[in-house]
Amino acid sequence: MQQLLIIKIGGNVIDQPEALKVFLDDFAPIPGKKILIHGGGKIATDISRTLGIEVQMIDGRRITDAETLKVVTMVYGGLINKTIVSGLQVRGCNAIGLTGADANVMAAKKRVDKNIDYGFVGDIEQVNGGPIMQFLNVGLTPIFAPLTHDGKGVMLNTNADTIAAALASALCKHYETRLIYCFDKKGVLASTDDDSVIPQLNQRQYQDLKAKGVVIKGMLPKLDNAFATLQAGVHTVTLCHAAQIQRAVKGNLAVGTTLVL
Amino acid sequence: MQQLLIIKIGGNVIDQPEALKVFLDDFAPIPGKKILIHGGGKIATDISRTLGIEVQMIDGRRITDAETLKVVTMVYGGLINKTIVSGLQVRGCNAIGLTGADANVMAAKKRVDKNIDYGFVGDIEQVNGGPIMQFLNVGLTPIFAPLTHDGKGVMLNTNADTIAAALASALCKHYETRLIYCFDKKGVLASTDDDSVIPQLNQRQYQDLKAKGVVIKGMLPKLDNAFATLQAGVHTVTLCHAAQIQRAVKGNLAVGTTLVL
Repeated sequence: MQQLLIIKIGGNVIDQPEALKVFLDDFAPIPGKKILIHGGGKIATDISRTLGIEVQMIDGRRITDAETLKVVTMVYGGLINKTIVSGLQVRGCNAIGLTGADANVMAAKKRVDKNIDYGFVGDIEQVNGGPIMQFLNVGLTPIFAPLTHDGKGVMLNTNADTIAAALASALCKHYETRLIYCFDKKGVLASTDDDSVIPQLNQRQYQDLKAKGVVIKGMLPKLDNAFATLQAGVHTVTLCHAAQIQRAVKGNLAVGTTLVL
Repeated sequence: MQQLLIIKIGGNVIDQPEALKVFLDDFAPIPGKKILIHGGGKIATDISRTLGIEVQMIDGRRITDAETLKVVTMVYGGLINKTIVSGLQVRGCNAIGLTGADANVMAAKKRVDKNIDYGFVGDIEQVNGGPIMQFLNVGLTPIFAPLTHDGKGVMLNTNADTIAAALASALCKHYETRLIYCFDKKGVLASTDDDSVIPQLNQRQYQDLKAKGVVIKGMLPKLDNAFATLQAGVHTVTLCHAAQIQRAVKGNLAVGTTLVL
Protein backbone atom coordinates (compact mmCIF):
# COMPACT_ATOMS: atom_id res chain seq x y z
CA MET A 1 0.00 0.00 0.00
CA GLN A 2 1.34 3.43 -0.92
CA GLN A 3 1.75 5.99 1.82
CA LEU A 4 -0.21 9.22 2.10
CA LEU A 5 0.49 12.06 4.49
CA ILE A 6 -2.34 14.43 5.44
CA ILE A 7 -1.34 17.56 7.36
CA LYS A 8 -3.61 20.21 8.80
CA ILE A 9 -2.33 23.65 9.80
CA GLY A 10 -4.33 26.07 11.87
CA GLY A 11 -4.89 29.78 11.88
CA ASN A 12 -1.92 30.40 14.18
CA VAL A 13 0.47 29.51 11.34
CA ILE A 14 -1.49 31.42 8.69
CA ASP A 15 -1.68 34.59 10.77
CA GLN A 16 2.12 34.83 11.04
CA PRO A 17 3.85 35.30 7.66
CA GLU A 18 7.20 34.18 9.11
CA ALA A 19 5.75 31.01 10.67
CA LEU A 20 3.97 30.22 7.39
CA LYS A 21 7.22 30.60 5.44
CA VAL A 22 9.02 28.22 7.79
CA PHE A 23 6.17 25.74 7.52
CA LEU A 24 6.15 25.89 3.69
CA ASP A 25 9.94 25.40 3.70
CA ASP A 26 9.40 22.28 5.80
CA PHE A 27 6.33 20.97 3.94
CA ALA A 28 7.45 21.44 0.31
CA PRO A 29 10.33 18.92 0.28
CA ILE A 30 8.43 16.10 2.02
CA PRO A 31 8.62 13.24 -0.48
CA GLY A 32 5.65 11.15 -1.65
CA LYS A 33 1.92 11.75 -1.76
CA LYS A 34 0.68 14.47 0.57
CA ILE A 35 -2.30 16.73 1.20
CA LEU A 36 -2.46 19.98 3.16
CA ILE A 37 -5.57 21.43 4.79
CA HIS A 38 -5.42 25.00 6.04
CA GLY A 39 -7.61 26.79 8.52
CA GLY A 40 -8.87 30.31 8.30
CA GLY A 41 -6.99 32.53 10.67
CA LYS A 42 -7.83 36.02 11.81
CA ILE A 43 -7.70 37.65 8.38
CA ALA A 44 -11.37 36.85 7.71
CA THR A 45 -12.32 38.52 11.00
CA ASP A 46 -10.21 41.60 10.24
CA ILE A 47 -11.65 41.95 6.73
CA SER A 48 -15.21 41.39 7.95
CA ARG A 49 -14.78 44.18 10.50
CA THR A 50 -13.29 46.57 7.92
CA LEU A 51 -16.19 45.79 5.57
CA GLY A 52 -18.60 46.56 8.41
CA ILE A 53 -19.87 42.98 8.72
CA GLU A 54 -20.65 41.96 12.28
CA VAL A 55 -18.51 39.05 13.50
CA GLN A 56 -20.46 36.62 15.66
CA MET A 57 -18.70 33.76 17.42
CA ILE A 58 -20.47 31.15 19.56
CA ASP A 59 -18.20 28.72 21.45
CA GLY A 60 -15.33 29.62 19.15
CA ARG A 61 -17.38 28.93 16.04
CA ARG A 62 -18.04 31.61 13.48
CA ILE A 63 -21.68 32.28 12.66
CA THR A 64 -21.67 32.42 8.87
CA ASP A 65 -24.42 34.68 7.54
CA ALA A 66 -24.66 35.43 3.80
CA GLU A 67 -22.19 38.34 3.96
CA THR A 68 -19.73 36.39 6.11
CA LEU A 69 -19.93 33.48 3.65
CA LYS A 70 -18.74 35.85 0.92
CA VAL A 71 -15.83 36.95 3.12
CA VAL A 72 -14.70 33.41 4.01
CA THR A 73 -15.06 32.28 0.39
CA MET A 74 -12.81 35.19 -0.63
CA VAL A 75 -10.30 34.91 2.17
CA TYR A 76 -10.05 31.13 2.61
CA GLY A 77 -10.61 30.07 -1.01
CA GLY A 78 -8.81 33.01 -2.60
CA LEU A 79 -6.25 34.86 -0.52
CA ILE A 80 -4.98 32.19 1.89
CA ASN A 81 -5.29 29.24 -0.49
CA LYS A 82 -3.46 30.96 -3.37
CA THR A 83 -0.79 32.38 -1.05
CA ILE A 84 -0.02 28.83 0.01
CA VAL A 85 -0.26 27.37 -3.51
CA SER A 86 2.07 29.98 -5.07
CA GLY A 87 4.35 29.70 -2.02
CA LEU A 88 4.64 25.95 -2.56
CA GLN A 89 5.18 26.28 -6.33
CA VAL A 90 8.28 28.43 -5.77
CA ARG A 91 9.53 25.73 -3.37
CA GLY A 92 9.20 23.04 -6.04
CA CYS A 93 5.97 21.47 -4.74
CA ASN A 94 3.31 21.19 -7.45
CA ALA A 95 0.32 22.33 -5.40
CA ILE A 96 -3.30 22.65 -6.51
CA GLY A 97 -5.83 24.60 -4.45
CA LEU A 98 -9.21 23.02 -3.82
CA THR A 99 -12.48 23.65 -2.06
CA GLY A 100 -15.11 20.94 -1.75
CA ALA A 101 -16.86 22.37 -4.82
CA ASP A 102 -13.83 21.91 -7.09
CA ALA A 103 -14.18 18.61 -8.95
CA ASN A 104 -16.95 18.00 -6.39
CA VAL A 105 -14.38 16.50 -4.04
CA MET A 106 -16.38 17.15 -0.89
CA ALA A 107 -20.12 17.67 -0.49
CA ALA A 108 -21.70 18.86 2.73
CA LYS A 109 -25.07 19.64 4.23
CA LYS A 110 -25.95 22.97 5.77
CA ARG A 111 -25.96 22.43 9.53
CA VAL A 112 -29.38 22.34 11.18
CA ASP A 113 -29.27 23.01 14.92
CA LYS A 114 -32.46 23.68 16.84
CA ASN A 115 -30.67 25.94 19.33
CA ILE A 116 -28.22 27.93 17.23
CA ASP A 117 -28.44 29.11 13.63
CA TYR A 118 -24.84 28.68 12.47
CA GLY A 119 -25.76 29.98 9.02
CA PHE A 120 -23.81 28.70 6.03
CA VAL A 121 -21.81 26.06 7.90
CA GLY A 122 -21.41 22.64 6.37
CA ASP A 123 -21.27 19.15 7.85
CA ILE A 124 -19.47 16.83 5.45
CA GLU A 125 -21.64 14.18 3.81
CA GLN A 126 -19.40 12.77 1.09
CA VAL A 127 -15.75 12.70 0.10
CA ASN A 128 -15.15 11.82 -3.56
CA GLY A 129 -11.77 10.17 -3.41
CA GLY A 130 -11.59 9.55 -7.18
CA PRO A 131 -10.46 13.00 -8.36
CA ILE A 132 -8.22 13.47 -5.31
CA MET A 133 -6.42 10.20 -6.14
CA GLN A 134 -6.13 11.28 -9.78
CA PHE A 135 -4.44 14.50 -8.66
CA LEU A 136 -2.08 12.59 -6.34
CA ASN A 137 -1.27 10.09 -9.10
CA VAL A 138 -0.05 12.82 -11.47
CA GLY A 139 2.19 14.29 -8.78
CA LEU A 140 -0.05 17.11 -7.57
CA THR A 141 -0.35 18.11 -3.91
CA PRO A 142 -3.94 19.12 -3.07
CA ILE A 143 -4.25 22.17 -0.76
CA PHE A 144 -7.70 22.30 0.82
CA ALA A 145 -9.38 25.50 1.97
CA PRO A 146 -11.93 25.03 4.78
CA LEU A 147 -14.87 25.32 2.39
CA THR A 148 -17.28 22.77 0.96
CA HIS A 149 -20.48 23.07 -1.10
CA ASP A 150 -23.99 21.72 -0.70
CA GLY A 151 -24.35 20.49 -4.29
CA LYS A 152 -27.18 22.98 -4.68
CA GLY A 153 -24.96 25.88 -5.68
CA VAL A 154 -24.06 27.16 -2.23
CA MET A 155 -20.58 27.23 -0.67
CA LEU A 156 -20.38 26.26 3.02
CA ASN A 157 -17.89 27.23 5.70
CA THR A 158 -16.47 23.97 7.07
CA ASN A 159 -14.14 23.23 9.96
CA ALA A 160 -10.62 22.42 8.72
CA ASP A 161 -10.02 19.73 11.39
CA THR A 162 -13.16 17.97 10.20
CA ILE A 163 -12.08 18.21 6.55
CA ALA A 164 -8.72 16.67 7.46
CA ALA A 165 -10.43 13.83 9.36
CA ALA A 166 -12.94 13.19 6.55
CA LEU A 167 -10.17 13.08 3.93
CA ALA A 168 -8.08 10.72 6.05
CA SER A 169 -11.03 8.40 6.75
CA ALA A 170 -11.98 8.24 3.06
CA LEU A 171 -8.47 7.83 1.66
CA CYS A 172 -7.15 5.30 4.20
CA LYS A 173 -8.90 2.58 2.19
CA HIS A 174 -6.46 3.30 -0.65
CA TYR A 175 -3.29 4.45 1.12
CA GLU A 176 -1.46 3.81 4.36
CA THR A 177 -2.56 7.18 5.72
CA ARG A 178 -0.87 9.28 8.38
CA LEU A 179 -2.71 12.30 9.71
CA ILE A 180 -0.88 15.14 11.46
CA TYR A 181 -2.66 18.03 13.13
CA CYS A 182 -0.40 21.04 13.62
CA PHE A 183 -1.62 23.47 16.22
CA ASP A 184 -0.30 26.02 18.71
CA LYS A 185 0.78 23.48 21.35
CA LYS A 186 3.47 20.82 21.27
CA GLY A 187 0.84 18.10 21.69
CA VAL A 188 -1.91 17.05 24.08
CA LEU A 189 -0.89 18.44 27.46
CA ALA A 190 -1.19 16.73 30.86
CA SER A 191 -1.30 20.10 32.65
CA THR A 192 -1.15 23.83 32.01
CA ASP A 193 2.62 23.45 31.51
CA ASP A 194 3.32 23.79 27.77
CA ASP A 195 5.99 21.09 28.01
CA SER A 196 3.76 18.48 29.67
CA VAL A 197 3.19 16.70 26.36
CA ILE A 198 1.64 13.23 26.55
CA PRO A 199 3.71 11.25 24.01
CA GLN A 200 1.09 8.58 23.43
CA LEU A 201 -2.61 8.53 24.15
CA ASN A 202 -5.06 5.68 23.71
CA GLN A 203 -8.81 5.95 23.70
CA ARG A 204 -9.23 4.77 27.30
CA GLN A 205 -6.65 7.25 28.58
CA TYR A 206 -8.34 9.97 26.56
CA GLN A 207 -11.70 9.21 28.17
CA ASP A 208 -10.00 9.44 31.58
CA LEU A 209 -8.45 12.83 30.80
CA LYS A 210 -11.80 14.02 29.50
CA ALA A 211 -13.58 12.91 32.68
CA LYS A 212 -10.93 14.61 34.83
CA GLY A 213 -11.30 17.85 32.85
CA VAL A 214 -7.65 17.82 31.72
CA VAL A 215 -8.65 17.89 28.05
CA ILE A 216 -11.16 20.65 27.46
CA LYS A 217 -12.77 23.01 24.97
CA GLY A 218 -11.39 23.07 21.42
CA MET A 219 -9.33 19.93 22.00
CA LEU A 220 -12.42 17.75 22.48
CA PRO A 221 -13.83 17.81 18.92
CA LYS A 222 -10.26 17.63 17.55
CA LEU A 223 -9.51 14.47 19.53
CA ASP A 224 -12.96 12.93 19.03
CA ASN A 225 -12.45 13.43 15.28
CA ALA A 226 -8.94 12.04 15.44
CA PHE A 227 -9.88 8.84 17.28
CA ALA A 228 -12.74 8.29 14.81
CA THR A 229 -10.23 8.34 11.92
CA LEU A 230 -8.16 5.65 13.66
CA GLN A 231 -11.28 3.52 13.91
CA ALA A 232 -11.90 4.13 10.19
CA GLY A 233 -8.46 2.70 9.45
CA VAL A 234 -6.06 5.64 9.50
CA HIS A 235 -2.57 4.35 10.34
CA THR A 236 -1.43 7.02 12.81
CA VAL A 237 -2.64 10.38 14.07
CA THR A 238 -0.15 12.86 15.52
CA LEU A 239 -0.80 16.23 17.14
CA CYS A 240 2.18 18.59 17.27
CA HIS A 241 3.33 22.17 16.80
CA ALA A 242 3.80 23.34 13.18
CA ALA A 243 7.46 24.04 13.92
CA GLN A 244 7.96 20.32 14.69
CA ILE A 245 6.55 19.08 11.39
CA GLN A 246 9.78 17.79 9.87
CA ARG A 247 10.57 15.58 12.86
CA ALA A 248 6.94 14.42 13.12
CA VAL A 249 6.91 13.44 9.43
CA LYS A 250 10.03 11.35 9.97
CA GLY A 251 8.06 9.37 12.55
CA ASN A 252 9.94 10.66 15.59
CA LEU A 253 7.69 9.46 18.42
CA ALA A 254 9.32 11.93 20.82
CA VAL A 255 7.51 14.67 18.90
CA GLY A 256 3.96 15.63 19.79
CA THR A 257 1.23 13.25 20.86
CA THR A 258 0.58 10.10 18.88
CA LEU A 259 -2.87 8.62 19.20
CA VAL A 260 -3.46 4.88 19.31
CA LEU A 261 -6.69 2.94 19.60
CA MET B 1 -8.73 15.52 -33.44
CA GLN B 2 -11.02 16.01 -30.45
CA GLN B 3 -12.83 19.31 -30.10
CA LEU B 4 -12.26 21.84 -27.34
CA LEU B 5 -14.38 24.88 -26.63
CA ILE B 6 -12.85 27.83 -24.76
CA ILE B 7 -15.25 30.52 -23.61
CA LYS B 8 -14.41 33.81 -21.92
CA ILE B 9 -17.01 35.85 -20.05
CA GLY B 10 -16.45 39.41 -18.97
CA GLY B 11 -17.29 41.48 -15.94
CA ASN B 12 -20.66 42.53 -17.36
CA VAL B 13 -21.98 38.97 -16.85
CA ILE B 14 -20.37 38.54 -13.44
CA ASP B 15 -21.76 41.82 -12.11
CA GLN B 16 -25.37 40.79 -12.80
CA PRO B 17 -26.46 37.74 -10.78
CA GLU B 18 -29.39 37.10 -13.15
CA ALA B 19 -27.22 37.27 -16.28
CA LEU B 20 -24.68 34.95 -14.65
CA LYS B 21 -27.42 32.42 -13.83
CA VAL B 22 -28.64 32.44 -17.43
CA PHE B 23 -25.09 32.03 -18.68
CA LEU B 24 -24.40 29.09 -16.34
CA ASP B 25 -27.69 27.48 -17.44
CA ASP B 26 -26.47 27.76 -21.03
CA PHE B 27 -22.85 26.77 -20.38
CA ALA B 28 -23.33 23.73 -18.10
CA PRO B 29 -25.06 21.41 -20.63
CA ILE B 30 -22.63 22.08 -23.51
CA PRO B 31 -21.28 18.61 -24.32
CA GLY B 32 -17.62 17.72 -24.75
CA LYS B 33 -14.40 19.28 -23.49
CA LYS B 34 -14.68 22.91 -22.47
CA ILE B 35 -12.90 25.61 -20.49
CA LEU B 36 -14.29 28.83 -19.03
CA ILE B 37 -12.29 31.97 -18.26
CA HIS B 38 -13.95 34.67 -16.20
CA GLY B 39 -13.05 38.32 -15.83
CA GLY B 40 -13.16 40.34 -12.67
CA GLY B 41 -16.12 42.64 -12.65
CA LYS B 42 -16.84 45.57 -10.41
CA ILE B 43 -16.91 43.63 -7.14
CA ALA B 44 -13.13 44.03 -6.69
CA THR B 45 -13.49 47.80 -7.11
CA ASP B 46 -16.39 47.96 -4.65
CA ILE B 47 -14.54 45.88 -2.06
CA SER B 48 -11.31 47.86 -2.52
CA ARG B 49 -13.20 51.11 -1.89
CA THR B 50 -14.93 49.72 1.21
CA LEU B 51 -11.56 48.51 2.53
CA GLY B 52 -10.17 52.00 1.94
CA ILE B 53 -7.79 50.95 -0.84
CA GLU B 54 -7.37 53.54 -3.56
CA VAL B 55 -8.51 52.27 -6.98
CA GLN B 56 -6.26 53.46 -9.79
CA MET B 57 -7.17 52.79 -13.41
CA ILE B 58 -5.03 53.83 -16.39
CA ASP B 59 -6.58 53.26 -19.83
CA GLY B 60 -9.10 50.86 -18.32
CA ARG B 61 -6.36 48.82 -16.67
CA ARG B 62 -6.25 48.37 -12.94
CA ILE B 63 -3.01 49.38 -11.24
CA THR B 64 -2.34 46.47 -8.91
CA ASP B 65 -0.40 47.53 -5.84
CA ALA B 66 0.25 45.05 -3.01
CA GLU B 67 -3.08 45.73 -1.28
CA THR B 68 -5.03 45.57 -4.54
CA LEU B 69 -3.33 42.25 -5.35
CA LYS B 70 -4.75 40.85 -2.11
CA VAL B 71 -8.23 42.06 -3.08
CA VAL B 72 -8.15 40.60 -6.62
CA THR B 73 -6.72 37.31 -5.32
CA MET B 74 -9.63 37.14 -2.87
CA VAL B 75 -12.36 38.30 -5.20
CA TYR B 76 -11.30 36.68 -8.49
CA GLY B 77 -9.71 33.50 -7.10
CA GLY B 78 -12.12 33.07 -4.19
CA LEU B 79 -15.53 34.69 -4.43
CA ILE B 80 -16.18 34.81 -8.19
CA ASN B 81 -14.38 31.58 -9.05
CA LYS B 82 -16.11 29.50 -6.38
CA THR B 83 -19.51 31.07 -7.10
CA ILE B 84 -19.12 29.87 -10.70
CA VAL B 85 -17.71 26.45 -9.74
CA SER B 86 -20.47 25.68 -7.21
CA GLY B 87 -23.05 27.12 -9.64
CA LEU B 88 -21.85 24.72 -12.35
CA GLN B 89 -21.75 21.73 -9.98
CA VAL B 90 -25.47 22.11 -9.20
CA ARG B 91 -26.07 22.21 -12.97
CA GLY B 92 -24.29 18.89 -13.48
CA CYS B 93 -21.04 20.29 -14.86
CA ASN B 94 -17.98 18.97 -12.99
CA ALA B 95 -16.06 22.24 -12.72
CA ILE B 96 -12.67 22.83 -11.13
CA GLY B 97 -11.46 26.34 -10.32
CA LEU B 98 -7.91 27.26 -11.27
CA THR B 99 -5.49 30.15 -11.19
CA GLY B 100 -2.17 30.00 -13.02
CA ALA B 101 -0.51 28.91 -9.76
CA ASP B 102 -2.67 25.80 -9.36
CA ALA B 103 -0.81 22.82 -10.81
CA ASN B 104 1.46 25.54 -12.26
CA VAL B 105 -0.80 25.72 -15.33
CA MET B 106 0.20 29.25 -16.27
CA ALA B 107 3.35 31.17 -15.37
CA ALA B 108 3.75 34.88 -16.02
CA LYS B 109 6.26 37.67 -15.63
CA LYS B 110 5.57 40.88 -13.74
CA ARG B 111 5.07 43.56 -16.37
CA VAL B 112 7.90 46.06 -16.74
CA ASP B 113 6.84 49.31 -18.43
CA LYS B 114 9.14 52.31 -18.39
CA ASN B 115 6.20 54.73 -18.42
CA ILE B 116 3.64 53.18 -16.10
CA ASP B 117 4.11 51.01 -13.02
CA TYR B 118 1.21 48.58 -13.38
CA GLY B 119 2.22 46.85 -10.15
CA PHE B 120 1.48 43.14 -9.78
CA VAL B 121 0.26 42.59 -13.33
CA GLY B 122 1.43 39.51 -15.22
CA ASP B 123 2.27 38.91 -18.87
CA ILE B 124 1.93 35.21 -19.62
CA GLU B 125 5.16 33.38 -20.35
CA GLN B 126 4.16 29.73 -20.31
CA VAL B 127 1.03 27.58 -20.46
CA ASN B 128 1.51 24.05 -19.13
CA GLY B 129 -1.02 22.14 -21.17
CA GLY B 130 -0.24 18.78 -19.49
CA PRO B 131 -2.29 19.16 -16.30
CA ILE B 132 -5.08 20.99 -18.15
CA MET B 133 -5.39 18.07 -20.57
CA GLN B 134 -5.34 15.62 -17.65
CA PHE B 135 -8.28 17.48 -16.09
CA LEU B 136 -10.18 17.53 -19.39
CA ASN B 137 -9.49 13.81 -19.91
CA VAL B 138 -11.13 12.85 -16.60
CA GLY B 139 -14.22 14.90 -17.44
CA LEU B 140 -13.43 18.06 -15.51
CA THR B 141 -14.21 21.57 -16.80
CA PRO B 142 -11.47 24.03 -15.79
CA ILE B 143 -12.71 27.46 -14.68
CA PHE B 144 -9.91 30.02 -14.84
CA ALA B 145 -9.76 33.13 -12.66
CA PRO B 146 -7.78 36.03 -14.19
CA LEU B 147 -4.75 35.35 -12.01
CA THR B 148 -1.36 33.84 -12.74
CA HIS B 149 1.84 33.51 -10.71
CA ASP B 150 5.46 34.43 -11.33
CA GLY B 151 6.93 31.12 -10.14
CA LYS B 152 8.68 33.07 -7.39
CA GLY B 153 5.81 32.92 -4.95
CA VAL B 154 3.84 35.95 -6.13
CA MET B 155 0.36 35.95 -7.65
CA LEU B 156 -0.18 38.31 -10.60
CA ASN B 157 -3.34 40.01 -11.87
CA THR B 158 -3.70 38.96 -15.52
CA ASN B 159 -6.13 40.03 -18.23
CA ALA B 160 -8.80 37.37 -18.81
CA ASP B 161 -8.88 37.93 -22.61
CA THR B 162 -5.16 37.24 -22.71
CA ILE B 163 -5.54 34.10 -20.60
CA ALA B 164 -8.22 32.83 -22.98
CA ALA B 165 -6.00 33.54 -26.00
CA ALA B 166 -2.93 31.91 -24.40
CA LEU B 167 -4.93 28.79 -23.47
CA ALA B 168 -6.39 28.53 -26.98
CA SER B 169 -3.00 29.00 -28.64
CA ALA B 170 -1.36 26.36 -26.43
CA LEU B 171 -4.15 23.78 -26.61
CA CYS B 172 -4.92 24.03 -30.34
CA LYS B 173 -1.95 21.74 -30.97
CA HIS B 174 -3.90 18.97 -29.22
CA TYR B 175 -7.55 19.80 -29.95
CA GLU B 176 -9.61 21.38 -32.70
CA THR B 177 -10.08 24.53 -30.62
CA ARG B 178 -12.90 27.06 -30.84
CA LEU B 179 -12.55 30.29 -28.87
CA ILE B 180 -15.59 32.40 -28.01
CA TYR B 181 -15.33 35.82 -26.37
CA CYS B 182 -18.57 36.87 -24.70
CA PHE B 183 -18.82 40.57 -24.08
CA ASP B 184 -21.43 43.33 -23.74
CA LYS B 185 -22.00 43.77 -27.51
CA LYS B 186 -23.48 41.41 -30.08
CA GLY B 187 -20.16 41.33 -31.98
CA VAL B 188 -17.73 43.69 -33.67
CA LEU B 189 -19.82 46.68 -34.73
CA ALA B 190 -19.56 48.63 -38.00
CA SER B 191 -21.03 51.77 -36.38
CA THR B 192 -22.38 53.05 -33.08
CA ASP B 193 -25.59 51.10 -33.80
CA ASP B 194 -25.66 48.08 -31.48
CA ASP B 195 -27.16 45.96 -34.26
CA SER B 196 -24.49 46.77 -36.87
CA VAL B 197 -22.70 43.49 -36.23
CA ILE B 198 -20.07 42.48 -38.78
CA PRO B 199 -20.77 38.73 -39.27
CA GLN B 200 -17.28 37.88 -40.52
CA LEU B 201 -14.02 39.76 -40.29
CA ASN B 202 -10.68 38.90 -41.81
CA GLN B 203 -7.35 40.39 -40.87
CA ARG B 204 -7.20 42.78 -43.83
CA GLN B 205 -10.71 44.10 -43.12
CA TYR B 206 -9.75 44.48 -39.45
CA GLN B 207 -6.70 46.58 -40.35
CA ASP B 208 -9.01 48.77 -42.50
CA LEU B 209 -11.51 49.27 -39.65
CA LYS B 210 -8.63 50.04 -37.31
CA ALA B 211 -7.19 52.65 -39.72
CA LYS B 212 -10.64 54.25 -40.13
CA GLY B 213 -11.12 54.42 -36.36
CA VAL B 214 -14.21 52.16 -36.42
CA VAL B 215 -12.64 49.67 -34.03
CA ILE B 216 -11.22 51.47 -31.03
CA LYS B 217 -10.16 51.27 -27.39
CA GLY B 218 -10.76 48.00 -25.55
CA MET B 219 -11.61 46.14 -28.76
CA LEU B 220 -8.10 46.55 -30.18
CA PRO B 221 -6.16 44.29 -27.78
CA LYS B 222 -9.08 41.83 -27.80
CA LEU B 223 -9.00 41.54 -31.60
CA ASP B 224 -5.20 41.64 -31.86
CA ASN B 225 -5.13 38.75 -29.37
CA ALA B 226 -7.87 36.90 -31.23
CA PHE B 227 -6.20 37.12 -34.65
CA ALA B 228 -2.93 35.93 -33.11
CA THR B 229 -4.69 32.77 -31.85
CA LEU B 230 -5.94 32.04 -35.40
CA GLN B 231 -2.38 32.32 -36.62
CA ALA B 232 -1.31 29.93 -33.85
CA GLY B 233 -3.79 27.39 -35.21
CA VAL B 234 -7.06 28.00 -33.37
CA HIS B 235 -9.94 26.76 -35.53
CA THR B 236 -12.42 29.64 -35.09
CA VAL B 237 -12.76 32.74 -32.94
CA THR B 238 -16.21 34.22 -32.32
CA LEU B 239 -17.14 37.41 -30.47
CA CYS B 240 -20.74 37.60 -29.25
CA HIS B 241 -23.00 38.60 -26.37
CA ALA B 242 -23.15 36.16 -23.42
CA ALA B 243 -26.90 35.77 -24.00
CA GLN B 244 -26.14 34.33 -27.47
CA ILE B 245 -23.77 31.63 -26.26
CA GLN B 246 -25.97 28.61 -27.01
CA ARG B 247 -26.46 29.58 -30.65
CA ALA B 248 -22.78 30.53 -31.02
CA VAL B 249 -21.69 27.15 -29.64
CA LYS B 250 -23.89 25.40 -32.21
CA GLY B 251 -21.85 27.15 -34.91
CA ASN B 252 -24.62 29.51 -36.01
CA LEU B 253 -22.67 31.97 -38.16
CA ALA B 254 -25.52 34.50 -37.94
CA VAL B 255 -24.49 35.01 -34.30
CA GLY B 256 -21.77 37.48 -33.39
CA THR B 257 -18.61 38.13 -35.37
CA THR B 258 -16.51 35.23 -36.59
CA LEU B 259 -12.88 36.01 -37.28
CA VAL B 260 -11.02 34.44 -40.19
CA LEU B 261 -7.41 34.87 -41.24
